[in-house]
Amino acid sequence: MDKLLYGVAYYDEYMPYDRLNEDIRMMKEAGINVVRIAESTWSTHEPQNGVFDFSSVDRVLDAMHEAGIHVIVGTPTYAIPTWMVKEHPDVLAVTAAGPGKYGARQIMDITHPVYLFHAERIIRKLIERVSKHPAVIGYQTDNETKHYGTAGPNVQLRFVKYMRDTYETLDRVNELFGLDYWSNRINSWEDFPSVVGTINGSLGAEFAKFQRGLVNGFLAWQVGLVNEYKQPGQFVTQNFDFEWRGYSFGVQPSVNHFEAAVPFDIAGVDIYHPSQDELTGIEISFGGDMTRSLKGSNYLVLETQAQAFPHWTPYPGQLRLQAFSHVASGADMVAYWHWHSIHNSFETYWKGLLSHDFLPNPVYNEAGTIGRDFARLSDELVHLRKQNDVAVMVSNEALTALEWFKLPDGKLYNDVVRWLYDELYKMNIGCDFITPACEKLDDYKVVIVPALYAVPDATLERLNAFVEQGGHAVYSFKSGFADERIKVRTSQQPGIIGQACGVGYSLFIDPKNVGLKGAGLTAAPGTVTSWMELLTPLTDEVEVLAHYDHPQWGEYAAITRNRYGKGTATYIGCLTDGASAHEVLKGTVQEAGLWGEDQQVSFPIIVKHGVNQQGAQLRYYFNYSAEPVSFVYPHAAGQELLDGCSINQGEQLTLAPWGVQIIKAG
Amino acid sequence: MDKLLYGVAYYDEYMPYDRLNEDIRMMKEAGINVVRIAESTWSTHEPQNGVFDFSSVDRVLDAMHEAGIHVIVGTPTYAIPTWMVKEHPDVLAVTAAGPGKYGARQIMDITHPVYLFHAERIIRKLIERVSKHPAVIGYQTDNETKHYGTAGPNVQLRFVKYMRDTYETLDRVNELFGLDYWSNRINSWEDFPSVVGTINGSLGAEFAKFQRGLVNGFLAWQVGLVNEYKQPGQFVTQNFDFEWRGYSFGVQPSVNHFEAAVPFDIAGVDIYHPSQDELTGIEISFGGDMTRSLKGSNYLVLETQAQAFPHWTPYPGQLRLQAFSHVASGADMVAYWHWHSIHNSFETYWKGLLSHDFLPNPVYNEAGTIGRDFARLSDELVHLRKQNDVAVMVSNEALTALEWFKLPDGKLYNDVVRWLYDELYKMNIGCDFITPACEKLDDYKVVIVPALYAVPDATLERLNAFVEQGGHAVYSFKSGFADERIKVRTSQQPGIIGQACGVGYSLFIDPKNVGLKGAGLTAAPGTVTSWMELLTPLTDEVEVLAHYDHPQWGEYAAITRNRYGKGTATYIGCLTDGASAHEVLKGTVQEAGLWGEDQQVSFPIIVKHGVNQQGAQLRYYFNYSAEPVSFVYPHAAGQELLDGCSINQGEQLTLAPWGVQIIKAG
Amino acid sequence: MDKLLYGVAYYDEYMPYDRLNEDIRMMKEAGINVVRIAESTWSTHEPQNGVFDFSSVDRVLDAMHEAGIHVIVGTPTYAIPTWMVKEHPDVLAVTAAGPGKYGARQIMDITHPVYLFHAERIIRKLIERVSKHPAVIGYQTDNETKHYGTAGPNVQLRFVKYMRDTYETLDRVNELFGLDYWSNRINSWEDFPSVVGTINGSLGAEFAKFQRGLVNGFLAWQVGLVNEYKQPGQFVTQNFDFEWRGYSFGVQPSVNHFEAAVPFDIAGVDIYHPSQDELTGIEISFGGDMTRSLKGSNYLVLETQAQAFPHWTPYPGQLRLQAFSHVASGADMVAYWHWHSIHNSFETYWKGLLSHDFLPNPVYNEAGTIGRDFARLSDELVHLRKQNDVAVMVSNEALTALEWFKLPDGKLYNDVVRWLYDELYKMNIGCDFITPACEKLDDYKVVIVPALYAVPDATLERLNAFVEQGGHAVYSFKSGFADERIKVRTSQQPGIIGQACGVGYSLFIDPKNVGLKGAGLTAAPGTVTSWMELLTPLTDEVEVLAHYDHPQWGEYAAITRNRYGKGTATYIGCLTDGASAHEVLKGTVQEAGLWGEDQQVSFPIIVKHGVNQQGAQLRYYFNYSAEPVSFVYPHAAGQELLDGCSINQGEQLTLAPWGVQIIKAG
Repeated sequence: MDKLLYGVAYYDEYMPYDRLNEDIRMMKEAGINVVRIAESTWSTHEPQNGVFDFSSVDRVLDAMHEAGIHVIVGTPTYAIPTWMVKEHPDVLAVTAAGPGKYGARQIMDITHPVYLFHAERIIRKLIERVSKHPAVIGYQTDNETKHYGTAGPNVQLRFVKYMRDTYETLDRVNELFGLDYWSNRINSWEDFPSVVGTINGSLGAEFAKFQRGLVNGFLAWQVGLVNEYKQPGQFVTQNFDFEWRGYSFGVQPSVNHFEAAVPFDIAGVDIYHPSQDELTGIEISFGGDMTRSLKGSNYLVLETQAQAFPHWTPYPGQLRLQAFSHVASGADMVAYWHWHSIHNSFETYWKGLLSHDFLPNPVYNEAGTIGRDFARLSDELVHLRKQNDVAVMVSNEALTALEWFKLPDGKLYNDVVRWLYDELYKMNIGCDFITPACEKLDDYKVVIVPALYAVPDATLERLNAFVEQGGHAVYSFKSGFADERIKVRTSQQPGIIGQACGVGYSLFIDPKNVGLKGAGLTAAPGTVTSWMELLTPLTDEVEVLAHYDHPQWGEYAAITRNRYGKGTATYIGCLTDGASAHEVLKGTVQEAGLWGEDQQVSFPIIVKHGVNQQGAQLRYYFNYSAEPVSFVYPHAAGQELLDGCSINQGEQLTLAPWGVQIIKAG
Repeated sequence: MDKLLYGVAYYDEYMPYDRLNEDIRMMKEAGINVVRIAESTWSTHEPQNGVFDFSSVDRVLDAMHEAGIHVIVGTPTYAIPTWMVKEHPDVLAVTAAGPGKYGARQIMDITHPVYLFHAERIIRKLIERVSKHPAVIGYQTDNETKHYGTAGPNVQLRFVKYMRDTYETLDRVNELFGLDYWSNRINSWEDFPSVVGTINGSLGAEFAKFQRGLVNGFLAWQVGLVNEYKQPGQFVTQNFDFEWRGYSFGVQPSVNHFEAAVPFDIAGVDIYHPSQDELTGIEISFGGDMTRSLKGSNYLVLETQAQAFPHWTPYPGQLRLQAFSHVASGADMVAYWHWHSIHNSFETYWKGLLSHDFLPNPVYNEAGTIGRDFARLSDELVHLRKQNDVAVMVSNEALTALEWFKLPDGKLYNDVVRWLYDELYKMNIGCDFITPACEKLDDYKVVIVPALYAVPDATLERLNAFVEQGGHAVYSFKSGFADERIKVRTSQQPGIIGQACGVGYSLFIDPKNVGLKGAGLTAAPGTVTSWMELLTPLTDEVEVLAHYDHPQWGEYAAITRNRYGKGTATYIGCLTDGASAHEVLKGTVQEAGLWGEDQQVSFPIIVKHGVNQQGAQLRYYFNYSAEPVSFVYPHAAGQELLDGCSINQGEQLTLAPWGVQIIKAG
Repeated sequence: MDKLLYGVAYYDEYMPYDRLNEDIRMMKEAGINVVRIAESTWSTHEPQNGVFDFSSVDRVLDAMHEAGIHVIVGTPTYAIPTWMVKEHPDVLAVTAAGPGKYGARQIMDITHPVYLFHAERIIRKLIERVSKHPAVIGYQTDNETKHYGTAGPNVQLRFVKYMRDTYETLDRVNELFGLDYWSNRINSWEDFPSVVGTINGSLGAEFAKFQRGLVNGFLAWQVGLVNEYKQPGQFVTQNFDFEWRGYSFGVQPSVNHFEAAVPFDIAGVDIYHPSQDELTGIEISFGGDMTRSLKGSNYLVLETQAQAFPHWTPYPGQLRLQAFSHVASGADMVAYWHWHSIHNSFETYWKGLLSHDFLPNPVYNEAGTIGRDFARLSDELVHLRKQNDVAVMVSNEALTALEWFKLPDGKLYNDVVRWLYDELYKMNIGCDFITPACEKLDDYKVVIVPALYAVPDATLERLNAFVEQGGHAVYSFKSGFADERIKVRTSQQPGIIGQACGVGYSLFIDPKNVGLKGAGLTAAPGTVTSWMELLTPLTDEVEVLAHYDHPQWGEYAAITRNRYGKGTATYIGCLTDGASAHEVLKGTVQEAGLWGEDQQVSFPIIVKHGVNQQGAQLRYYFNYSAEPVSFVYPHAAGQELLDGCSINQGEQLTLAPWGVQIIKAG
């Protein structure tokens, strides 16, 4: 689609009375130009095994088409009908918690042939029926797909075969996974115990990786089915989501987004975030950077919040701020979950653009201003191209490893990722995400590596080479510690990257009342919060940015930077407050020559930029605060797109509370 | 019985040695005139299937009769014998947590024919044996009966039939319960899944209501059996209890007390409450008002605390204060659980009047003063008639609904009920409880409606008519929100009552740092604690008692009052501190002309009044504090019954710490 | 062995590459002279049912022998192989949580014949093979053996037979265990329900005692097997451990150490404790006093921490302080768990002397100084004989009872034990542990009795006689309360000991804002933290050390002391802060004439003493703080063994931070 899409999820099936025409009238008024339908109503479309009823789909497609609203059709496979569970109770995933119970969505075994047979049939019936309808611009396979912890005997059987295919002999398995420990050794394939009870983190993590592989396979299979019907110009996407801590917090544990995204035409995502006084834009930026990185291209925000949850009802102006923030990260579509607010069942308080009363309300009214601006500025704003010099390397394997071996205060992988990512965001450093499999590190000048705990040698060697050739790497504590099967390296830590970093350590501590002291970096006791490695520089050339400030551990380095070849490698041996991380990242960014005009301002003033399809440079300025903020515009003159006025270099600009301006260069 | 009963639960079966005569001697000394026996010792009375031994019952009845102590006999069905579970393990209730385990009481499936067969036989054997004994004044069926979460396949089967009987077709069920959502639609009765795993709040709540219906049926069945043997003058009662949060906190979730009470001759209750510095009398008043309301008559306190728990050992004077507080609410009996303190098993620290040593102790000694006063003043105090102008409308359905859809900070229905009830109590406004089914609203001048979240249209229309005809209603937030199946109304909120209240809202918030501002009602940031609806008055006539004090939401009303017809309707859109609720309730009470002399004093001075059987007005004055308190007696002259002195109007009265005075008018 | 052993656990099987010779070289350098092997690698030694491979054992034994390092061989039975569980899934213990899952260690039913058959075979094969090897000095049976909650039908069957053997008739069972309560009465042996669900604390506790008996039987059976092969000079030991609250906190709930220790030649133990700023030495002293008391003799510290956990990495000097603290309590061996740090699976962060990199590190280097001092001073330090005048009486039965009947704030038995023990430690009063079965109370001058809740009459009568004959007893609240089946005594509390203590009480309270007031003992409100009994002296002679300081309870005594016969009995009716307990214990110690020169110093200066095998008095002085401390040496002149200098009476001595000195008298 060559225009900016502004949409909602729409469930005609959930409506308390027939509202289709009135809903469409209100959508048009708000500038909604796309709806997402059908992904959770299997039992409506197939009321009994083999009996199909797509009448609600047909009528929505026709009405939307008539109104000029596009439709994305979802395959309705992530929530299964009652009849299927009655016929075959074993379609429910058996997990570590035992057999499943019917009720929620996402409870089935995605490898079960009963499920796959029925899923294939409804997908073919539905997609064949809608694919040539002129309203349909694309498809979404399933929704927020994961493996749901499926671990029953059939999945275990597959896992054992996977282990044999991957490692060939049990002797290798026993050695690589350290199964001699506590008599876990397996000496015959028949003896392979269910991993549900395993205490071996290496084996448990391998099973988690295998489960993520099931998701890849399942999604690729769905894409293959849909592709058989897909018409020219239509796309297939997936609605990825993130680690959920009441909102979209970080890297998704159960899916390898980078691998799972491969068969799709375009990546999609849902992003939920705190709001009101807690609105920072970080999750919007994080989710956007991640999803854009999956295929190195623009993406669709298939779901984001309108009024949901109750405590996230946006302040006036925030809905606009959020919408343009998505676009500034490269989104070509912003869609709300959902149009109306569901009147009962489970998500009654995940409120849509409309409340349960279907009346216009302040949020809906503000959406109208977004819809009008999107329509007016679509050509300028769509397909924003972004190129970043900084990458953050993230890893499902490291994430799983740190679930097995948590930091002493229970902190997890994404806490470390967010600790560093948030500081990059606040200093207006744009970045991409990459994985340990990335072969193109040279596309970047700086690579940030949070807690890369479990990682193959090859990645670490590539990172050393990247630095040697002029790149700048920043590692946090625990990086390089273990191999890809979470077996701790036998070399001095931090293992292979110690070569570039020029530090080593043998001891580590759960800090209490520890601060930082150093030429340029001091911090009060308590600043080192959750982990500390007792670093020793290996050469005199290593720059110690900070030592620990503690009566017993003051001789050890906390943060170091080392010139290695043409680049630098920075090692942060402890979890600190944000301000200290900020100082370290700033130093590396400056080393890399990336400290520029956008760094003259910082959070709550956020700058995002890119190049539009006409080749013009766009700069988005956001005010993530309830107070007006001013700054001097440092770039060459341009035009503010939202109100059309001209902006001169050096002019003092003021952003309204929760305000946004978009300045086109030239 | 035409006298005040003062009693204890007595378990001859639990005694470590034969103490019957000594116990009776000590009871007589303390003025105990009734004991409650037999309700938890089935395995003693039926040691093997069909083998009966009522010798301990016989001997206690004979001895009590000889001593002039009455006896209430319980049916021993709430704790089942070991042999029954060995013979038929499936008598244990299957719940959402899975199959049951033997050990505790109240673990059986109250619908199971094996249980019912044995229960019927022991009831008939026991009641037939004792009914003509002159000591027996009445019966208690079972004890604290509930459904114990029974939800096994047999119960599910009944539920499906109940749904078909109630709603006739699945199309109606699917529509009314919103089952299209997440593919929960049921298209054939055979497909009806167990509701144990449901995520559909409407369906889950309907099942909870069905389970409460099982309790009604079970109790009515027991009453029917007992009635076959009941002699003239004898009564049948039930020991109801409340939501338990370590003590009797609020409306019982698992039983509809109003429905369940119908077949009984008189309502009974157990009431436990904090003590020592935390003794406020609120639970005594709450439980009394509720139980008196069940049948609009006097009631029995079948259990209340003596020394239990250890941390509730009463301060000197508190046991007296408590006993007279029960009577002041309309109790005709106050009985302790229990006489002695059990020497082992589970409730060792639920201490009785006597400690484990059976020696006189300060609590027992204080009980003696109560027993003597009860005996002396019985004719004056028994059968107190109370008539209140204020009613609080409570609802099991709203309670269940708010368990499914909790307030953001986890607060539940009873938190809202108690927030308002406690303020009425503290300002000495006597009240009754009514349910949404109540057709006689005109009996009252004020109706308080806390969080009536799930409620039929008809109730709300009756409430509007009540106001129109001159009544005064006070609604809290979330009232009128959803229908009786927790389907949110599609009209603007607060739905039907919006007509009388003159307000509407579409948005609601989880408040942070929100206060109240208004002509008569201001409150600091943080006063609005857990929920806020952004109210807009629908007409200029609506009086806004307070707006929200918040930078973003200050334009919205928080609390409003509206004249509608001859009455007023007050709407409180948020959960506040008690002081703010106090102000709002006070205003309504004044509007209703109910602000009188008893409101000149307030907590810790509590006044309760009623008319005794001779037609004289009695006023109880309680001091719920550790300091002496004084006040001017505003009523016509009378006599203080406890010490017999005369009281003049305008006289300064002083209540001792934890003291009580009872003044009879005239 | 007639020398001090300094050791590590060593797992050749877990090594990532062949390091045996290098490890031995590094051990020798650090003075390691013993290793512990084989106790958790059954699946390596028996890779398939009946196929044996002891090659790793053989090669380690040979290499160690060549290096002059002794070996303790463990029976590998506490972690079972995968093939056994595949062949017989029911070897996994069925517990209250249901059937087990394979994965962890210590998951089997220790009564299951399948397990016992295989365990016996591997024990015989292994011990027969190694017993004559010259490296082998002894054996460890299993490891940290417990019953693992085994409670399946077979165990239940045994329990029923145990009950019949013990109590003969159900009438007695029903009476002694109070089963009439809540209809738990059992009237036929066939009806005996599984105790897994019981709510009867008496029955539950009896089952816990029965389960502890299973451990006794299992260990005795293993010792019997090993003894068939044991050679002259070899020993059999067991690795006991303690209640685990993240470290070795207190009395072990699942094993009666005193009974289980009987068949062993020497007691062994593992002790883990907080470190760094939280290092106090209390757990070392507690674990040492307990283990030494088991057989009244020296003991082996089979496991203690080197670097583990991460947050326990010792400060410089602490490893030495710890090692000599063990020896000062009577340990003849100090061994670390473990040599290296395991590279994966579960205990990756239980770090050994070496980190994962196998390089020398500060902790390893400090171990070398210990090894050298141990070797040099072995003759002086080994076999320290200790004789104490103070005993602490501890009881598994009281512990279990207080798990059933917790203190109001959730505190447990060991909180009470530690509350008193810790104060004894801090005032340098050495003590032994005894059990209620102890017949030799006259060996002591003072007996401390914390919370002896469930106890037979005979013990209490022995304690009364002990006092009468001149002993001094200190009881805490809840002592003497119930009989050995947790049936509360029917006499006035504190039951039988009330005679010696001269106090009685009927009421008890959960204190709020309660302090202490008295001639010699006052304490601020809040000092009484978790329990208070309202004590009344029975005679005027009873000395009230403190009354409660509270508006309502001030008339009651809190702490009393009574002369009874030739001794005194002190009763502490409440849980207090440490300072108040200190004052009370100090008073009793002074009464007993035990307040001496070692009491001139107190924590953080700790003194331990004993007599070495040459009959010389040794005094260990420890500084458990990060600051240097000084004191006047009050004893006759002697020699400091670590640096060889002479010490004069009255000389000012200074201990370095975390320092130790050992002074030999004469």
